[in-house]
Amino acid sequence: MSLLVVGSIAYDTIETPTARRENVLGGSAPFFSYAAGFFCPAQMVGVVGADWLPQYTEMFQKHGVDTAGIEIVPDGKTFRWSGKYHKNMNDRDTLETHLNVLGTFQPKLPEDYRRAQFVFLANCAPSTCLAALEQVQGADLVVADTMDLWISTTRSDLDTLLKRIDGLIINDSEAKMLTGEINTVTAARKVLTMGPKFVIVKKGEHGAMFVSEYELYVVPAFPVEDVVDPTGAGDSFAGGLMGYIASKQGNLDDETIKTALVYGTIVASFGIEGFSFDRYKEISRADIDARREAFRKITAF
Amino acid sequence: MSLLVVGSIAYDTIETPTARRENVLGGSAPFFSYAAGFFCPAQMVGVVGADWLPQYTEMFQKHGVDTAGIEIVPDGKTFRWSGKYHKNMNDRDTLETHLNVLGTFQPKLPEDYRRAQFVFLANCAPSTCLAALEQVQGADLVVADTMDLWISTTRSDLDTLLKRIDGLIINDSEAKMLTGEINTVTAARKVLTMGPKFVIVKKGEHGAMFVSEYELYVVPAFPVEDVVDPTGAGDSFAGGLMGYIASKQGNLDDETIKTALVYGTIVASFGIEGFSFDRYKEISRADIDARREAFRKITAF
Repeated sequence: MSLLVVGSIAYDTIETPTARRENVLGGSAPFFSYAAGFFCPAQMVGVVGADWLPQYTEMFQKHGVDTAGIEIVPDGKTFRWSGKYHKNMNDRDTLETHLNVLGTFQPKLPEDYRRAQFVFLANCAPSTCLAALEQVQGADLVVADTMDLWISTTRSDLDTLLKRIDGLIINDSEAKMLTGEINTVTAARKVLTMGPKFVIVKKGEHGAMFVSEYELYVVPAFPVEDVVDPTGAGDSFAGGLMGYIASKQGNLDDETIKTALVYGTIVASFGIEGFSFDRYKEISRADIDARREAFRKITAF
Repeated sequence: MSLLVVGSIAYDTIETPTARRENVLGGSAPFFSYAAGFFCPAQMVGVVGADWLPQYTEMFQKHGVDTAGIEIVPDGKTFRWSGKYHKNMNDRDTLETHLNVLGTFQPKLPEDYRRAQFVFLANCAPSTCLAALEQVQGADLVVADTMDLWISTTRSDLDTLLKRIDGLIINDSEAKMLTGEINTVTAARKVLTMGPKFVIVKKGEHGAMFVSEYELYVVPAFPVEDVVDPTGAGDSFAGGLMGYIASKQGNLDDETIKTALVYGTIVASFGIEGFSFDRYKEISRADIDARREAFRKITAF
């Protein structure tokens, strides 16, 4: 069983109302693959510059993430993003974006990645996602994320991508933007007419929802009191969710889907308790399972 | 077992993006007591004018709600509120408020109401709530709702009220306003230092949360696709919740609390599917229980 992710790798500079971190590891592919790594081996495809630190390669490898797909551009710099969170720790302003090597990224999948059973196209340009997907053969399950930027600037590519994937993971506001609908469930159902067989709507601190033609599942968020840094929460959610599904051989019965939603929620709830990967480095699958039980206790009726 | 509610009774004029209804029954006490009536007998205290329609008295009585506490002011007019919902059906603007008889409302509890075991002080001025509470003797459980208006204009009365109640039901944004906190759980915990032994935070389409010193429970909202009119949803939520707790003799074990949160959620989910009491008049306890089971299926893991 193999779970492939293609996405951005970043150095983030993050300001919150109480703290600031410069040039810490971020990006959709790292958060996704580390979160997935709690459940199954993962393969990461992305691009970095000469400023990539070998310690990160080591961190991923120790966690079961294959890093052979990380392309290092020797005369380039890694993608950089900086953002500032508002007092509510939900809204944020992007201060700077330097695409650097990500600007010309053309994903090249190592030979053994091309037979991945499970594929996650993390948030990158739809054309980049499509270029990666062309190299994959016979995947059991292809899921993508997307964002407002691609909805408004590369809609045609995005429409093509939507027809090639099994599932879409998308923010609540972006699902509404993509469909022009104002109700979350209605928006999700409309996405189903665009290609995907299922849609997972991320609602941040309000949880998530799974919608397919005949199914609908909802999960609240695990209540976190001390939110340190929400960066990467959506990618970590997707990683925990897809990692669990991959560990179940892609079986999409209702119990697996609901448990996957919960695992995504729980993994993300740890991630936001620290900057970058700080909190993840302190926890194990046992911690995740313990919090999952606590979550069951506070929600089951 | 008896559940008493003191609150506003209104004629609402409601505009949504697709429809408009004039002078339909609304107000915190009617929504609360009708919702509670699915679970236990309720007693309603409020004031109306000469324009009060006997058909409403009949509707409540048929549903197990004692209306002896509805004071009719022969030369007055019932409180009127009109509002317009935004396209998202969550935000709304108040267009007009005519307090009419509510402006000088002094609750007078019928003799047999004064020994109520369970008391809900729906959203009215804290001084009105206190005046009602003075007339109650030996209640097992007193719960109140409040709103931004009282937080900003009658804080001192509100602080007094908070010290006299067992539980507070409050909107997410109002809990944050009341405490100056930005995190929902932290805000709820701070409310506990102001008097109540428990706080229930209403998050509208995102569900609800129960917080006490040693307990925390969360419940998502039941996903409703066709929201016709959200007016009264918070009061109906409180009514379903308190009605269930009263039907369990006020036992506050964790199962009862979680089930009460769910019943509040489910009852409110029906209410918003129609204007005023339209949808409630079509359903029975069996419909509520069926939806509760459906809710369990889409959330249990």
